[in-house]
Amino acid sequence: MTGTVFGSPWLQGLLSDAEIAARLGPDAQMHDMLRVEAAYARAKAAVGQVPEEIAGDAAKAILAFTPDLNLLAATALRDGMPVPGLVAQLRAALPEALHGAVHGGLTSQDVMDTALVLALRDVCDLLEARLGAVITALKGLSERFGAAQMMGMTRMQPALPITVGDRLRGWQGPLPRHLGRLTELRPRLLRLQLGGPVGTGSTLGGQRDAIAAHMAAALDLAAPDSAWHVERDALVEFGGWLAMLTGSLGKVGQDVALMAQSGPQVLRLASGGASSAMAHKTNPIDAEMLVTLARFNAAQLTGLTGTLLHEQERSGAAWTLEWMLLPQMMLATGAALSAAGRMVSAIESIGTTRA
Amino acid sequence: MTGTVFGSPWLQGLLSDAEIAARLGPDAQMHDMLRVEAAYARAKAAVGQVPEEIAGDAAKAILAFTPDLNLLAATALRDGMPVPGLVAQLRAALPEALHGAVHGGLTSQDVMDTALVLALRDVCDLLEARLGAVITALKGLSERFGAAQMMGMTRMQPALPITVGDRLRGWQGPLPRHLGRLTELRPRLLRLQLGGPVGTGSTLGGQRDAIAAHMAAALDLAAPDSAWHVERDALVEFGGWLAMLTGSLGKVGQDVALMAQSGPQVLRLASGGASSAMAHKTNPIDAEMLVTLARFNAAQLTGLTGTLLHEQERSGAAWTLEWMLLPQMMLATGAALSAAGRMVSAIESIGTTRA
Amino acid sequence: MTGTVFGSPWLQGLLSDAEIAARLGPDAQMHDMLRVEAAYARAKAAVGQVPEEIAGDAAKAILAFTPDLNLLAATALRDGMPVPGLVAQLRAALPEALHGAVHGGLTSQDVMDTALVLALRDVCDLLEARLGAVITALKGLSERFGAAQMMGMTRMQPALPITVGDRLRGWQGPLPRHLGRLTELRPRLLRLQLGGPVGTGSTLGGQRDAIAAHMAAALDLAAPDSAWHVERDALVEFGGWLAMLTGSLGKVGQDVALMAQSGPQVLRLASGGASSAMAHKTNPIDAEMLVTLARFNAAQLTGLTGTLLHEQERSGAAWTLEWMLLPQMMLATGAALSAAGRMVSAIESIGTTRA
Amino acid sequence: MTGTVFGSPWLQGLLSDAEIAARLGPDAQMHDMLRVEAAYARAKAAVGQVPEEIAGDAAKAILAFTPDLNLLAATALRDGMPVPGLVAQLRAALPEALHGAVHGGLTSQDVMDTALVLALRDVCDLLEARLGAVITALKGLSERFGAAQMMGMTRMQPALPITVGDRLRGWQGPLPRHLGRLTELRPRLLRLQLGGPVGTGSTLGGQRDAIAAHMAAALDLAAPDSAWHVERDALVEFGGWLAMLTGSLGKVGQDVALMAQSGPQVLRLASGGASSAMAHKTNPIDAEMLVTLARFNAAQLTGLTGTLLHEQERSGAAWTLEWMLLPQMMLATGAALSAAGRMVSAIESIGTTRA
Repeated sequence: MTGTVFGSPWLQGLLSDAEIAARLGPDAQMHDMLRVEAAYARAKAAVGQVPEEIAGDAAKAILAFTPDLNLLAATALRDGMPVPGLVAQLRAALPEALHGAVHGGLTSQDVMDTALVLALRDVCDLLEARLGAVITALKGLSERFGAAQMMGMTRMQPALPITVGDRLRGWQGPLPRHLGRLTELRPRLLRLQLGGPVGTGSTLGGQRDAIAAHMAAALDLAAPDSAWHVERDALVEFGGWLAMLTGSLGKVGQDVALMAQSGPQVLRLASGGASSAMAHKTNPIDAEMLVTLARFNAAQLTGLTGTLLHEQERSGAAWTLEWMLLPQMMLATGAALSAAGRMVSAIESIGTTRA
Repeated sequence: MTGTVFGSPWLQGLLSDAEIAARLGPDAQMHDMLRVEAAYARAKAAVGQVPEEIAGDAAKAILAFTPDLNLLAATALRDGMPVPGLVAQLRAALPEALHGAVHGGLTSQDVMDTALVLALRDVCDLLEARLGAVITALKGLSERFGAAQMMGMTRMQPALPITVGDRLRGWQGPLPRHLGRLTELRPRLLRLQLGGPVGTGSTLGGQRDAIAAHMAAALDLAAPDSAWHVERDALVEFGGWLAMLTGSLGKVGQDVALMAQSGPQVLRLASGGASSAMAHKTNPIDAEMLVTLARFNAAQLTGLTGTLLHEQERSGAAWTLEWMLLPQMMLATGAALSAAGRMVSAIESIGTTRA
Repeated sequence: MTGTVFGSPWLQGLLSDAEIAARLGPDAQMHDMLRVEAAYARAKAAVGQVPEEIAGDAAKAILAFTPDLNLLAATALRDGMPVPGLVAQLRAALPEALHGAVHGGLTSQDVMDTALVLALRDVCDLLEARLGAVITALKGLSERFGAAQMMGMTRMQPALPITVGDRLRGWQGPLPRHLGRLTELRPRLLRLQLGGPVGTGSTLGGQRDAIAAHMAAALDLAAPDSAWHVERDALVEFGGWLAMLTGSLGKVGQDVALMAQSGPQVLRLASGGASSAMAHKTNPIDAEMLVTLARFNAAQLTGLTGTLLHEQERSGAAWTLEWMLLPQMMLATGAALSAAGRMVSAIESIGTTRA
Repeated sequence: MTGTVFGSPWLQGLLSDAEIAARLGPDAQMHDMLRVEAAYARAKAAVGQVPEEIAGDAAKAILAFTPDLNLLAATALRDGMPVPGLVAQLRAALPEALHGAVHGGLTSQDVMDTALVLALRDVCDLLEARLGAVITALKGLSERFGAAQMMGMTRMQPALPITVGDRLRGWQGPLPRHLGRLTELRPRLLRLQLGGPVGTGSTLGGQRDAIAAHMAAALDLAAPDSAWHVERDALVEFGGWLAMLTGSLGKVGQDVALMAQSGPQVLRLASGGASSAMAHKTNPIDAEMLVTLARFNAAQLTGLTGTLLHEQERSGAAWTLEWMLLPQMMLATGAALSAAGRMVSAIESIGTTRA
């Protein structure tokens, strides 16, 4: 029971995203953390720090491990994060002969940040595909109704007649740019984290770069020259991208809600939300949700931007705030892309045909 | 699976609040909505709109009702909220003879807002009690260590010696004021919502005020003269109060983290978070969390304040945004009060005893 | 040259407030700081720390002093605030015999915070009067058009007919509550600041409370028992009040803009902004500005709330952020109240008369 | 008199930026608007819509024009922007024979957005140069002190020894990425705006693209295929960049303030702010300002992101909000880069030399 809309049986379909929630949820997150630990074990073997067989056995055992969640919750409450408790459970479960390949030399942040990046990669792919679908849907809408007439509105007043295509151009314009921005930011974002306790790699036996190269290859990530423990700019940039995308979709939703208010001659939705009291209404729910989700993400972004003030070699305060904000921004963005898709599909007509 | 920290098995103990989450969770929320519907049925009887027996049977059936959540999710996705689907399920489940006492005349917002207020009342009580406990704990801390010496720090530089009590005065000062503010805002917040489809009471058979009085008495809420569908100021005020409270606690957390950095002569914590890599560390996790939660709520508040722009007779966009933001602010505040309590308890010493 | 709208010759009339800008501007701010220094000199005499005559002469000289602004700017750049440089200039200008009555024992924050509070008192009065005028104007609007008919709109869709008075009730409802909140917060806000370097009063010769009482009487402020250097909750509460007020006015502006879009049958404005290209338009500028200013203040509020994390005995970072945010929130609120007044005056009709 | 820090004689040196303020101030802004009008006159001639000589004379007269600012303020208050009033003044001042080359076909937004972009180009150059200087300064710092020892701090606790260079790596890392991002966003940002009243180019005599090409060449901007009146993504992206940059510098400031607290063995500043009460102090003012300015920009960004919801063909509300937020973000960023430069120069030592 979470008490938030993201956990509400009746609201999460509207305001969250099942696919992204699954990708960011505890099962996937645990699996990602274990993948990082396993990749580390194998990388240690690859650079000769532990025997191959030990590392292989450890990696398999790590990947197969299921933690005691109650215990993990208790230790996380103490430690402020799950990794120390997870590693303790791993060590308790694995034969002592394998311990040399388990975690030693890593820091919690190496594990959690790399696990996050593995999820971000999938979320980027998913959002990119969804955004592509919205672009296609808007292109279809433009093909169907682009030549129809409507009144152009400036400062919420009738201005001059335009075509529906004119208005749609303003909806479509930013979206390919958002795809371009995603392409630009991906290499800054999808990077292995490896630095050890204070980010210097000093606990990695002088082989930080070699270990990083092996792990990065195994996890299909870029391997930066040094840890980015305190350099959170790529995450904030990604959050900014999410907020820009939902903002652009919010403009579309706002426009649709405004167009739907004036009756079928401007925009007709095939269906919409029912009212408990007024049977005649067709509420433009998805259009409204686009506005809601845009404003939600804009609010989160201010907090996320503040996490750049990540003091010293690790800020528990800033790092934890990041965990609170970035996932729900991804969920809201997923929800917005879905709502946009539904909304465009539901448009039965826009504008009036030229006589 | 929510994908957010509020649903994380290993982070919700730290960043959420089990008690508040339960109070705001789907079971309680559904129960609150049904309580409102039941109170409405009985109030209709009290004013003579339906027979007492019909209303009584309907109220009992309503309170005992368990909705089909899958169906509810599907209708909420369409309607943007659960009530129309819930009412449809209720009507399908209840004998037709009782339908006259079910919902007719109400609007979804009457149900959801009043249900929210029922939860808010309990959350206010809970937060007030927790805040009282933190005030008591700080008083105890002051009694134990108030006379000890420490260096006063201004602009992060040693300034002049002060007592620990001097510093603690700055932690304690705002808290009774927050209690006072809560007392002031409660009557504005804990008010029945009743207005029907467009807030005018026009569907309530000319008996809006009498029905409101009966419902308010049954639910132990104030009954304002008119609906506050579009007047969200009390909710924003409450959100501002939450953010002020977590901000004041954030100052305490920030100070404790700064005091704990310099070794036991300034502040010693009995326990703290373990590091996966550095056994010697005692991390001031709860102090950090107070900073995190303060910044989280400050971010949410900007979005919540925007929901005052609740256009016309009902804004789906603004109302839904409120649902996204206010609950997680309550959860974060609950988490902060718990963290503050734990943190104060863990302080083993502050300052140095006067020679 | 400021480069912001608040200094723009052609935008400040719309987005700032000349009266509040003057009250917060450098001349008034300097005068307020000097008033505090003068009141302190006299209070020192009243408690016997300096001879009456010395204090009287010093106070007169202080109030008559005009600083060298270039020098002040240079020292403020170094010190992060104007007071140390101002005091140095004062001491250089005043005969040495008076120096014992100048500033010694105070800290910069005593001066700046008390000076701020003097300005806040006037701004509160001014905003209260303006808000009263808006309440009156809306009452007049309701008397003129309240009985007219219009379509109630929920979720941006026609719902059921309402009267204009029904809609106006939602505009009017929050405003008296805002007056009530202002009354509640004033005693928390309008308080003398006096604490000396680390807030303990240790430099005030054991007479902190007596000096505070004299200064408070002279400046007509409340005198709290201790300094509130690090307790910024009343300032944040006031900022929240400003944002709530502009938010409530933003709802009115949003509604007017929506009503004005559909032609004279819903709402007709006597005048509005001209377009450089479309002579037929009457743009609802003031209505739009209410939305703009509401969103502006909502953004500032997130930053202001963060200033509660005022670390240790004085946070240069948090305190300075307060200076950046709170004044422009007051200006925006003043601008919003003016825009609301203009907008209401410009309404020539709303709704349709019942046949 | 503006009443904000950006207009304060004693704070603008610290919190604003004289060079950027001049570039964004009214004189430069007026000149930029007139440059756009002049370029349009010449472009009309280039495509044959007006005689070359008429256009040339008009362009010269436009560029030489000095508006009556009082009149402009009065019309801007009515119109919500300066352009309609400015054009009216221009027409009144210029011989009627030139009127055909003045503004006709343009819309206010074409003028104001293009004028803004002209300023943004210079601000981008200026910020890039300043950022380059900070990168160089940090490189120098690293060369001087990189080998020294210091204690690595995680979660505000001593962790393991690191070198000063290790810490500095975390300061330096994001900065070249910010340069890279600026390079990426420039082509999206520095684009002519040309669309006429509703953005379709319909008032440009069928020669929108040709006119755009001429104007863009004259103003050295890119010429997009269509107007971006309602597509504000590049502006929000730029605001996000500003906030990311100040956030990265805020981390440096936070670290310096933390390092300076513990005495000269960790970090010694050559100079710092004086206290009005404590002569022994050296306050790390510039370090604190970096934190302040980072938090300021993070707050503005939430509002700016909301301006993406730019409804229909022109949103007065969203556009005006952009004017309120983006300039002060640029000023704060300029201030932060200056503060960073001063702060780095003032560092006399960091860390301890290896024995």
